[in-house]
Amino acid sequence: MKDPILIVGAGLVGSLWAVLLAKRGYQVEVFELRDDPRRAGFKGGRSINLAMSDRGWKAMERAGIKDTIRQQAIPMHGRKMHDTTGQLTFQPYGEADQAIYSVSRGGLNIELINIADQYGQVKFHFGYKCLGLEAESPTAHFEHRETVERLSVKASRIFGTDGAFSAVRRSLMKALPRFNYSQSFLDYGYKELHIPPTADGKHALDPNALHIWPRGQFMMIALPNVDGSFTGTLFLAYEGQTPAFEQLHTDEQIMAFFEQYFSDAIPLIPNLLEEFHENPTSSLVTIRCSPWCCEDKVLIMGDASHAIVPFYGQGMNSGFEDCTLLDELLEEHQGNWTTTIEVFNATRIKNANAIADLALRNFVEMRDKVADPKFLLRKEIAAHLNKVHPEFLPLYTQVTFSHIPYSEALAEGEAQDALFEDILALKDIEKNWKGHPEIERIFKQWMANRQARATA
Amino acid sequence: MKDPILIVGAGLVGSLWAVLLAKRGYQVEVFELRDDPRRAGFKGGRSINLAMSDRGWKAMERAGIKDTIRQQAIPMHGRKMHDTTGQLTFQPYGEADQAIYSVSRGGLNIELINIADQYGQVKFHFGYKCLGLEAESPTAHFEHRETVERLSVKASRIFGTDGAFSAVRRSLMKALPRFNYSQSFLDYGYKELHIPPTADGKHALDPNALHIWPRGQFMMIALPNVDGSFTGTLFLAYEGQTPAFEQLHTDEQIMAFFEQYFSDAIPLIPNLLEEFHENPTSSLVTIRCSPWCCEDKVLIMGDASHAIVPFYGQGMNSGFEDCTLLDELLEEHQGNWTTTIEVFNATRIKNANAIADLALRNFVEMRDKVADPKFLLRKEIAAHLNKVHPEFLPLYTQVTFSHIPYSEALAEGEAQDALFEDILALKDIEKNWKGHPEIERIFKQWMANRQARATA
Repeated sequence: MKDPILIVGAGLVGSLWAVLLAKRGYQVEVFELRDDPRRAGFKGGRSINLAMSDRGWKAMERAGIKDTIRQQAIPMHGRKMHDTTGQLTFQPYGEADQAIYSVSRGGLNIELINIADQYGQVKFHFGYKCLGLEAESPTAHFEHRETVERLSVKASRIFGTDGAFSAVRRSLMKALPRFNYSQSFLDYGYKELHIPPTADGKHALDPNALHIWPRGQFMMIALPNVDGSFTGTLFLAYEGQTPAFEQLHTDEQIMAFFEQYFSDAIPLIPNLLEEFHENPTSSLVTIRCSPWCCEDKVLIMGDASHAIVPFYGQGMNSGFEDCTLLDELLEEHQGNWTTTIEVFNATRIKNANAIADLALRNFVEMRDKVADPKFLLRKEIAAHLNKVHPEFLPLYTQVTFSHIPYSEALAEGEAQDALFEDILALKDIEKNWKGHPEIERIFKQWMANRQARATA
Repeated sequence: MKDPILIVGAGLVGSLWAVLLAKRGYQVEVFELRDDPRRAGFKGGRSINLAMSDRGWKAMERAGIKDTIRQQAIPMHGRKMHDTTGQLTFQPYGEADQAIYSVSRGGLNIELINIADQYGQVKFHFGYKCLGLEAESPTAHFEHRETVERLSVKASRIFGTDGAFSAVRRSLMKALPRFNYSQSFLDYGYKELHIPPTADGKHALDPNALHIWPRGQFMMIALPNVDGSFTGTLFLAYEGQTPAFEQLHTDEQIMAFFEQYFSDAIPLIPNLLEEFHENPTSSLVTIRCSPWCCEDKVLIMGDASHAIVPFYGQGMNSGFEDCTLLDELLEEHQGNWTTTIEVFNATRIKNANAIADLALRNFVEMRDKVADPKFLLRKEIAAHLNKVHPEFLPLYTQVTFSHIPYSEALAEGEAQDALFEDILALKDIEKNWKGHPEIERIFKQWMANRQARATA
């Protein structure tokens, strides 16, 4: 019998990848460090959510589970900004029918594991720590967390979907003679804060928006859950002069901070002090590496090869897109794994690096620029240009509502910065941009230059 | 009795650091993975040399061994370029009395160990592999390579000078919650080739120059040894279209390659084929990380915290400068280690990153630009400006013949690029740059702008 395909890590990417491989008829063994979430529940039972956008949905569709997931997802059509006085500003993400969707991380993972499990040829093994692997055979070694039973699994090939601190990546790093690797932490941490439903079970804020409290150097955000709650997340520097976690120890310090910056959120978080003290402060890391594979034997995917910060909502989406692209390559190359993995490794890394850059840049946008009238004006003009010239896609649309490779979106975004620099320099543009004749002229000139560059 | 200071790694930086600490009266224990080079000799007995420049000499002076080392060093006053026909061009590094010095890596290491050993309070332990450490105590664990005896050493503080693949750094990476780290390999490898003395014991090439065979995408260099030999080093891509190591397997392929690109070097390397087949192809890595310390308990220095590619000749020099700077800080802060390590960590990392960038950039300069008449013209004009305006220091001079922090040199180099872009754009500049009135005008304008920026 042929050796099975081995997947290390049954998180979102690993379990989706198991589904796609099962659909193609492969025997798949999945090993996961944590306990079975269907029995154990998710860590602390907290509602943690993620924003699914078009790249994620495409993968869901390919796995045949788009409709199931969509039923438990809440559309968010734009950002709702809260200023320090509690005043709200809304800024749509795209056109009226475009939205990103808040989905439960735990619920989605259980759903994907259940679907994979329905295929007889997928077998899950929970509670196994990966100790390392030999890439040539390839064989992976595990130890059960409780029984300390050890076992080695020989596979036809091994996929590492074991997250940002991947054991499979660590083995690749040792096995490959020249492995390029970087881990880079932000000086910021994040803390989740629970916003429960109102007394009558409703959402305490408009559920069809992603809420942002932009405060320049820091921010809070909140995404809706289907149970009527929101998950709030505070992003704040660990240390330093501006408000920072290290300055918030006593109840008085924490309350004073919230009263100054997030006063409208205080009544929404009834257990604010308890949550602030007890919930962990977690770090934000960007991981880049190259290559992602050892021949056609081992490949790392998702956070294991490209962990990014969460500010473009593309961590899960880019991991799911890895699955889509591999599945498409496998289709195109008629099951030839050697070519599939070679092409994926040669083409995908630059796109992962691009979304890593975009995600870092978007932190500044979310915590600072969304509160800037010039920035909102740019968004409005971009939406207008998109309506008049559908071939013009704003950067956010390219990343979130398209399947354009991230590296092309990044390059296009940089070109658009130049365009809007010219447009926003027009005299009194903020007063009368609608129908401003110069906008059309500048835009046409920019498009012509762009085409000239493209054909050059 | 007070716990001793522990140094992990008795290479160049570790043994120099032991000398400087001993001079201050500290008890020092030094553990080294390899055998005692005084007994074992250096790997394969090959002559490997390094270029010592002002930053290194300053550290030698501080250790009181400048004169001893200088006696065994060969001054190189400039670069001697070999074109494909064997024609030579000389380009001085600075003024007539300025030179970099070729020193034997092994000889220098032995000298430093000997000097440290003369201090009763320094103890060397060879053949011990560092298995890891606990930063808090701090305690390091070792295993003897042959006897497999294990021992743990508690220290007042631990310095990791154990090179690019540092075990101490690996422990810091695990101990610190947010350790930023990157390892980045060039797609190039290098191979050393021995150029023996002539029959009458003389150097086969001018010994007072660093020889370069620049070939655009690749190059060979050679540095003189005191025994009359040269160490040649070929830098070449591992793979690809241009000549690459993967294309050089058979004797015919190797000879054809040398005949086409390095024909004047063939008679200099009598064992060319044997050396090419048997000497390893080594990789070129840049390592950056932050922080370099765990409180005031553990600090990594030299290649352990900032390995760089060799193209600016600053790997050893920057490691030695780490020792000088720490020693100066210790002097300034009257033995206060907490402040010394804190200030070093806060100020040195940006300079290490700057020399890493400069070294990568200099590869292009050495393999390609030194063969470009425009580049040589720039060097000549820069030397002229330096003579007329001594406050103007060319970038190479700042890095090699000064103690200006590397990050300032890098910024200055970028400013100088703009200056020379303007100067070299002058009509017919290559024909009559001497006394060209425009050069003085452009230079004065540039200096005025620079001063305006500095005071702004």
